[in-house]
Amino acid sequence: MDKDISRAVIKRLPRYYRYLATLIDEGVERISSNDLSRRMRVTASQIRQDLNNFGGFGQQGYGYNVRFLHDEIGKILGLDATHPMILIGAGNLGQALANYSGFDKSGFNLIGIFDADPALSGSMIRGIPIHMIGDLDTFLLENKVEIAILTLPKAEAPQVAERLVEGGIKAIWNFAHVDLDTPDDVIVENVHLSESLMTLSYNLSEHHKSHQTES
Amino acid sequence: MDKDISRAVIKRLPRYYRYLATLIDEGVERISSNDLSRRMRVTASQIRQDLNNFGGFGQQGYGYNVRFLHDEIGKILGLDATHPMILIGAGNLGQALANYSGFDKSGFNLIGIFDADPALSGSMIRGIPIHMIGDLDTFLLENKVEIAILTLPKAEAPQVAERLVEGGIKAIWNFAHVDLDTPDDVIVENVHLSESLMTLSYNLSEHHKSHQTES
Repeated sequence: MDKDISRAVIKRLPRYYRYLATLIDEGVERISSNDLSRRMRVTASQIRQDLNNFGGFGQQGYGYNVRFLHDEIGKILGLDATHPMILIGAGNLGQALANYSGFDKSGFNLIGIFDADPALSGSMIRGIPIHMIGDLDTFLLENKVEIAILTLPKAEAPQVAERLVEGGIKAIWNFAHVDLDTPDDVIVENVHLSESLMTLSYNLSEHHKSHQTES
Repeated sequence: MDKDISRAVIKRLPRYYRYLATLIDEGVERISSNDLSRRMRVTASQIRQDLNNFGGFGQQGYGYNVRFLHDEIGKILGLDATHPMILIGAGNLGQALANYSGFDKSGFNLIGIFDADPALSGSMIRGIPIHMIGDLDTFLLENKVEIAILTLPKAEAPQVAERLVEGGIKAIWNFAHVDLDTPDDVIVENVHLSESLMTLSYNLSEHHKSHQTES
């Protein structure tokens, strides 16, 4: 991929990937941009434009080869590689993420879980051992780890993030309610659930207001 | 609030709200746009522009009154009202969300949990009863519920979303890996965790590629 692809297109790729995976599950082998457009509720011309970024997936009169397109987008998203991952914080949310087996299918392999609670020491989630947080630095020395999932209270997250960076982590999937201060070459993807709920709440109260004005 | 506020500003409000809450916790009573700018790593002029949308919070030579600004943004986000909420799907992620007590503080009151698993019938999470999904429609008739959190497998989510809409739900916080087909007056806020992880993965492989090119 030589040319720069706009952030807007990139943001849409996981959604294409999800729809194409569903089509594969349904046994659909090829699909026209019009049919895909109806399913995804975006215009067919947007689909053609987006997918043209990646060169010749579609053929006039044939449409898109679903499996091929799925796999090509997967490669662009880095899903053809294996990403060794650890999780820090085996609280409720951490356990929920650790229990989700779907990540493995996309190459995100959870190889270790860390927590500060001695009661959890030696136990496992989905066969993955829970280590004590004190062993984190040694673990990072002895294992190749690319991604760390951070599900810690905000007071603890920044200091642990620093240790992760020192240990050579390349990317942090951050669920802590805090912005992390990391070097430019470490990728941080935030999931701020509270902020998502506040956006919902804002839309709700705006809608309510406009409804009141109408009546 | 009479004038329209841009979506970009709205998207930033929860972050302001979070930083202001931290300042309150630290006992800070007022802050200049410059100091807030350093903390939040956005320019002071952006802060002034954003907050000017809501009129006269800041005073020349005084800065912003932290508590006042926090509460005003809270009102804009609809956090001064109470939002009765139910959760559908008491799997790992659902239980993690139900266990998070922070939502209550912002007025999001979880009043019921629903699941299809008879083994969960009658049990509670944080004192909130788990009902059987069959009782959902009656519950919605008998209780005022504004928001539904949907943590169901994607195969089950669309049909339950339909029942929620029929039952008068105003907003769905959707964690299911599927786009919901709801009427325009129902607000849907999606949290597609897999897509967030794919964005991280894309950035990781892009970074890796540019790094290879450099060396």
